[in-house]
Amino acid sequence: MSITRPLGFRAAATTAGLKPSGKPDLALITCDPTTPASLGAHGHAIERRHSAAAVFTRNVVVGAPVEIGRRWRASQGKGGRALRALLVNAGCSNAATGQPGIDDAIATMQAVASGLRCTPDEVLPSSTGIIGHRLPVDKINAAVPALVQALARGEMADDAAAAAIMTTDLVPKAAHREFELERHHVHLGAIGKGSGMIAPQLDSAGNVVPHATMLAFITTDAAVEQPCLQAALEEACRESFDRVSVDAHPSCSDTVVLMASGAAPVRMIHRDDPEYFAFKAALTAICQDLARQVVRDGEGATRIFRVEVRGANTHDEAVRIARAVVDSPLVKCAIHGKDPNWGRIVTAAGNAGVRFDTADASLAIGGVEVYRGGVPTGVARNDPKIVAAMSLDLVQCALTVGRGPGTGWMLGCDLSDKYVRINADYTT
Amino acid sequence: MSITRPLGFRAAATTAGLKPSGKPDLALITCDPTTPASLGAHGHAIERRHSAAAVFTRNVVVGAPVEIGRRWRASQGKGGRALRALLVNAGCSNAATGQPGIDDAIATMQAVASGLRCTPDEVLPSSTGIIGHRLPVDKINAAVPALVQALARGEMADDAAAAAIMTTDLVPKAAHREFELERHHVHLGAIGKGSGMIAPQLDSAGNVVPHATMLAFITTDAAVEQPCLQAALEEACRESFDRVSVDAHPSCSDTVVLMASGAAPVRMIHRDDPEYFAFKAALTAICQDLARQVVRDGEGATRIFRVEVRGANTHDEAVRIARAVVDSPLVKCAIHGKDPNWGRIVTAAGNAGVRFDTADASLAIGGVEVYRGGVPTGVARNDPKIVAAMSLDLVQCALTVGRGPGTGWMLGCDLSDKYVRINADYTT
Repeated sequence: MSITRPLGFRAAATTAGLKPSGKPDLALITCDPTTPASLGAHGHAIERRHSAAAVFTRNVVVGAPVEIGRRWRASQGKGGRALRALLVNAGCSNAATGQPGIDDAIATMQAVASGLRCTPDEVLPSSTGIIGHRLPVDKINAAVPALVQALARGEMADDAAAAAIMTTDLVPKAAHREFELERHHVHLGAIGKGSGMIAPQLDSAGNVVPHATMLAFITTDAAVEQPCLQAALEEACRESFDRVSVDAHPSCSDTVVLMASGAAPVRMIHRDDPEYFAFKAALTAICQDLARQVVRDGEGATRIFRVEVRGANTHDEAVRIARAVVDSPLVKCAIHGKDPNWGRIVTAAGNAGVRFDTADASLAIGGVEVYRGGVPTGVARNDPKIVAAMSLDLVQCALTVGRGPGTGWMLGCDLSDKYVRINADYTT
Repeated sequence: MSITRPLGFRAAATTAGLKPSGKPDLALITCDPTTPASLGAHGHAIERRHSAAAVFTRNVVVGAPVEIGRRWRASQGKGGRALRALLVNAGCSNAATGQPGIDDAIATMQAVASGLRCTPDEVLPSSTGIIGHRLPVDKINAAVPALVQALARGEMADDAAAAAIMTTDLVPKAAHREFELERHHVHLGAIGKGSGMIAPQLDSAGNVVPHATMLAFITTDAAVEQPCLQAALEEACRESFDRVSVDAHPSCSDTVVLMASGAAPVRMIHRDDPEYFAFKAALTAICQDLARQVVRDGEGATRIFRVEVRGANTHDEAVRIARAVVDSPLVKCAIHGKDPNWGRIVTAAGNAGVRFDTADASLAIGGVEVYRGGVPTGVARNDPKIVAAMSLDLVQCALTVGRGPGTGWMLGCDLSDKYVRINADYTT
């Protein structure tokens, strides 16, 4: 189970007719308000036990749902309501559609609000699929009543929701974690999608800077104060979704939403509580799990590789270097060909716009050092250890660029003929 | 004819045994000092009529020849000698080889100097090929005496040199321009190579900032004062080599060298002379010609596309946006598939890290406007005009991002299955 494993959540999915394939394409995930009865003997104060947080793409060009989501987020802490529902469709991203696109999205929010007896601002839409097409509002709104009726907890509901949000994904993506708080098991569940147009760089609530379609929806039955939930989500994303890239092209629709139902019979978590760190650790773990599933299912990908950079001046510089390596088409082709062509890795690192001294630089692939102090170590291309390291499902590259404290990593995938075929022959 | 069309230059090429294919792999281009006799009746002062200028990759990781070239350049204006010869090999880039690599390169410079009776600092080496392998100095130096003997002017010499410097190039690259000065025809000639690891971002003499292997060697019989020659080359590169990208991976060896023999019977050009602008225009034109040949022969490329950005705040912002578009694997695949998937173009632009308002944004492909004011214009995917525009050898995209004065362009190529095969199956 995934998103309905935490208490307080239900889900349903259906076929609204947005995907040319005729597969399911519309999912609804709801967070039910916590009642004293649901908290049982351990009941705490019930007012506003549920909260939500979200991060969105930093792309300048965004879908209407991202515009609406940013406004929702800005309302938090200023009297804005927490989320009761997520309405997610695949097949049409409702992006590059201007004000008419926003009006379309609002019409679907109203339909869901009416079905759930909540207000439209408690509903967040999220869309993925072709860019520049109007959302088929009639099809979606016609499907909503049955979707509301079908809301349920359990594995079937979770699997249906995970399948409905897929586009070029070959496999559905879901994860679950639990941890203990006050002797109670607190749960996190997540579903996600993403295969191409994947290099999420997610913004923060405070500072909207410019950047796939990667969607991730996370639920928890912990009770977490909203600013604290937002902070935990941003920090978790920095070390998960922001660290993966399939094709270096962040989408206009990347969205990660976290809903906390507060349905577990535990105290509400605030920023300085020790529980916050336990919660954040579990959240980071579930985000990393999902992020890895996304890159593993990258369009055309056959293998993945991780680049770890050490010795940079700062964490940001280390990540910039790691990103330059995982995004190099030449490195990605070498990984595909199982070719220990480490010169491509080193020169990709040298293109990151970060200065370093090659005299202090070294590179190991799968623990085999191939370059040290700016010169080759002399490992032969056909050395059995390097051949073995390059043949793994996960190729590990450790690059040292100096003696600074900065470390960072990125996870990427190989570039295959299949990626080209998918994206030359198919309109996404 | 190309590099020996300008007076004062000779060239030769041979097979030193560096390429596994056994094809020619070593070229020598010389600039002969101008003598009063060679200037004939129009003779001017002959002291130091010849000069040279160079730009190199901004990659932090560079080949030994680039290190040597940077030192040579730094010596100009400080008593350093002009260049008499370029020794160019393909098959081994002599990069990531540390001090031993520099020593190797110097040994080849000494061999050439000895053959030409000049000093080693009048010889510049340049190398392209596999990274992280020691230069086969013995093979090169054994070939030098015959190479010096074979130096000649004419089409055969030019063609031999252009062929010897090729790596994954399918076709040799050469260009020629002439313009009139003081009623004399002044010539420029050029040869170049480059197919993969192409996204040159060349530095300037004044400010070495961080970034293919793209090599270009340009000759002219104009007489140009060195600082002025360097300035002209840097400005020409900004609007040519720096504006092309095959795979967004600048090499450790990118080098452009311009040698002026001063052998044409015309006055020496200084920075504020009207002749400077005529010279720079001809130089820019020959660089653009060669740059376009490089991207046209990009690894696996079947077609090229040009992205022109208007309305940005600055030229730099416009170029950053254009670069984000030509380097997006999704856009490159759409060009390959002749798919008018303009949403990829617009979202790639939105990833450039440059803020713009989509309400002011528009996009035309081959003159057909598909997006205006942040919304689709409604052109159908199968509209004959858009199908025709997407099927041309050169696809033209014009993107407006606002009302600012900044304009800029980039030239890229499509991404095909063949690119993947070349780079997954072949070690460069």
